[in-house]
Amino acid sequence: MIFSKEEYLSRLSKVKKEMDQKNMDVLILTDPSNMNYLTGYDGWSFYVPQGVIISLDREQPIWFGRKQDSNGAKVTTYLDHENIIFYPEELIQAPPTHPYDFVSSYLHENNWASKNIGVEMDAYYYTAENHYRLTSTCPNANFHDATCLVNWVRLIKSDTEVAYMKEGAKLVQAGMRTAFDSIKPGVKQSFVAGQILNSLIAGNEEIKIGGEYSGLTPILASGISASASHLTPKDNIFNENEGTIIELAGVKHRYHCPLSRTVYCGKPDSKISDTMKITNEGVENAISIIKPGKTAHDVAVAFWSVLEKYGIEKDSRLGYATGLGYPPDWGEHTMSIRKNDMTVLEPNVTFHMIAGMWMDTWGLEISETINVTENGCELLCDLSRDLHLV
Amino acid sequence: MIFSKEEYLSRLSKVKKEMDQKNMDVLILTDPSNMNYLTGYDGWSFYVPQGVIISLDREQPIWFGRKQDSNGAKVTTYLDHENIIFYPEELIQAPPTHPYDFVSSYLHENNWASKNIGVEMDAYYYTAENHYRLTSTCPNANFHDATCLVNWVRLIKSDTEVAYMKEGAKLVQAGMRTAFDSIKPGVKQSFVAGQILNSLIAGNEEIKIGGEYSGLTPILASGISASASHLTPKDNIFNENEGTIIELAGVKHRYHCPLSRTVYCGKPDSKISDTMKITNEGVENAISIIKPGKTAHDVAVAFWSVLEKYGIEKDSRLGYATGLGYPPDWGEHTMSIRKNDMTVLEPNVTFHMIAGMWMDTWGLEISETINVTENGCELLCDLSRDLHLV
Repeated sequence: MIFSKEEYLSRLSKVKKEMDQKNMDVLILTDPSNMNYLTGYDGWSFYVPQGVIISLDREQPIWFGRKQDSNGAKVTTYLDHENIIFYPEELIQAPPTHPYDFVSSYLHENNWASKNIGVEMDAYYYTAENHYRLTSTCPNANFHDATCLVNWVRLIKSDTEVAYMKEGAKLVQAGMRTAFDSIKPGVKQSFVAGQILNSLIAGNEEIKIGGEYSGLTPILASGISASASHLTPKDNIFNENEGTIIELAGVKHRYHCPLSRTVYCGKPDSKISDTMKITNEGVENAISIIKPGKTAHDVAVAFWSVLEKYGIEKDSRLGYATGLGYPPDWGEHTMSIRKNDMTVLEPNVTFHMIAGMWMDTWGLEISETINVTENGCELLCDLSRDLHLV
Repeated sequence: MIFSKEEYLSRLSKVKKEMDQKNMDVLILTDPSNMNYLTGYDGWSFYVPQGVIISLDREQPIWFGRKQDSNGAKVTTYLDHENIIFYPEELIQAPPTHPYDFVSSYLHENNWASKNIGVEMDAYYYTAENHYRLTSTCPNANFHDATCLVNWVRLIKSDTEVAYMKEGAKLVQAGMRTAFDSIKPGVKQSFVAGQILNSLIAGNEEIKIGGEYSGLTPILASGISASASHLTPKDNIFNENEGTIIELAGVKHRYHCPLSRTVYCGKPDSKISDTMKITNEGVENAISIIKPGKTAHDVAVAFWSVLEKYGIEKDSRLGYATGLGYPPDWGEHTMSIRKNDMTVLEPNVTFHMIAGMWMDTWGLEISETINVTENGCELLCDLSRDLHLV
């Protein structure tokens, strides 16, 4: 078990309390992170319909999914086997039938079909069709939007969760150092990306731990492609006088520590090196004010005050809560570091502060994963944010 | 450009013809594979709302997404820049506002809000909330389910698409050979997974090409975990007298060649080696009958006739169409290789035939990616399907 049964039960209790306050009897979760958070389930099976059902009248959550994945639920969750149920294989990708017809029947069988049912309207893998099947076959239910209900419960981490993120920090620093060591003009991006992944997953002699796949694949883009935020490594080579943005995460037990840095082959012009200096000054100023009681808004103001001093604009937010994650994301969809997000920082709130400066034909990125402490904050990584010159 | 502009236009023309026949004026696509298929767009940005809009009254598709990703659309698509539009950053994860409010406004501005609008009801990343925003703000539109409309157009590949899958075949064989060479009792799964990923992405001296991230992360599970179909490598070690299932894909320009094999450390008992022989006989029998004119059903019957002869049961389907893919899947959600799927095989239909035998406490997998030819079929890989003994 990755966490004690007590920790899982404490999480469940918080979620049930939220359900009760929001007048939900039953909650259906499809976000794989939320499924994992409450049951421990861990498999790459979110490409088919699956979920976790929480009911106030049941002690344990119920995992539902495809038959061939139910063995995975037995291996990875703490649930009694009677709470692991599966739909028949013939419902897989076979319209007009659909796995949510099974879910609907299950709701009816348990007398939940006329209750107050929470669904994650905007969660990954909760498709419009899933919702249509439920609403059309449970006309007496009251459906409530439970998007991010569990995500907000996840905002403050336990010490064990933070400890796993610190393992991720070791892995992501190994990956970033591999990037620094292997990027050279004439070398292929794919070669570097393979080496980076090897470090992120296999670890190395020094750290002696291995990692896992992350919520996003490594982002690595050079030259004009660095003007976009999410392009991925290809089979072409690094060139002289080009910057490369790199965004990675080290992952332990699904807990992420993301990290971004920028590498430049050659001598950067002053536009690039000045922007990096200013961005770094903004990040330092933002970090300096982080402590319990401050808001995400306060952190954003501290960053943008530096940018404004130098007349630099940045539209995109400066960060977001991170931790537990599955593709396609390692962000938790709760707090964003931007003006007017009034989320109050507390100890063990963890977030990825990412200063992505995506310009018209070039780009820079630096970031830190940060844990709020009793009196301030700690950076999970310890790696210079300067432009890494090759 | 990965494909000629003519190829993109030919795909678009087929989709517009389907729309016309199904009485759709406008089609909104969110499946990243379908977005790529019609525009070339390639970025890991599907974790935020984005899509491609096809309208019968417009020559080109329209890409929409987040501002910071619109530069990626400029870099990777053939679209005129006026057809790349973005919503403001403040709509990102900031309820009660939502990016689909922007999409709805755009539909109204273009006089499409009272038209027949196709949406991919059951596609990845088309959430219930996306659909709710559109239907509630466009009450005069007729929404049609366009799930898999484009996927079915993708069923028959061009020669260029097949050529990219054959590049993927080189990569996945390199990855599988790395698995064979590195799995040993006492070695960590994470070490092997890192080496495999390095081979899949960086390639090697022999094949001299690099690859890309795949729709599923490498599946690698040993012992009882091999009884489940989608568990992933962890930081624990390989043990004597345990089988390990491995499922990988090599990817070139987003085109996948998946491949599964099973490794056993030690001497397998007869239950395992007999099941492997029978499964292999079934796969061979299924392959032997593949040619244009046969159906997916026929292929399934050929496989299960062997299993039935030996009294072995398998619930799950024997395969599915594959090719272009993004996380969380490399399957195309169209043809399945199972009884009663009457899809007729034609040249350049490509599919992953996967015989996954997931038992109570153990499991086996073998697979081939297959292209239907004029007179039969070709396997994209050339690697023994026998249990690989360590």
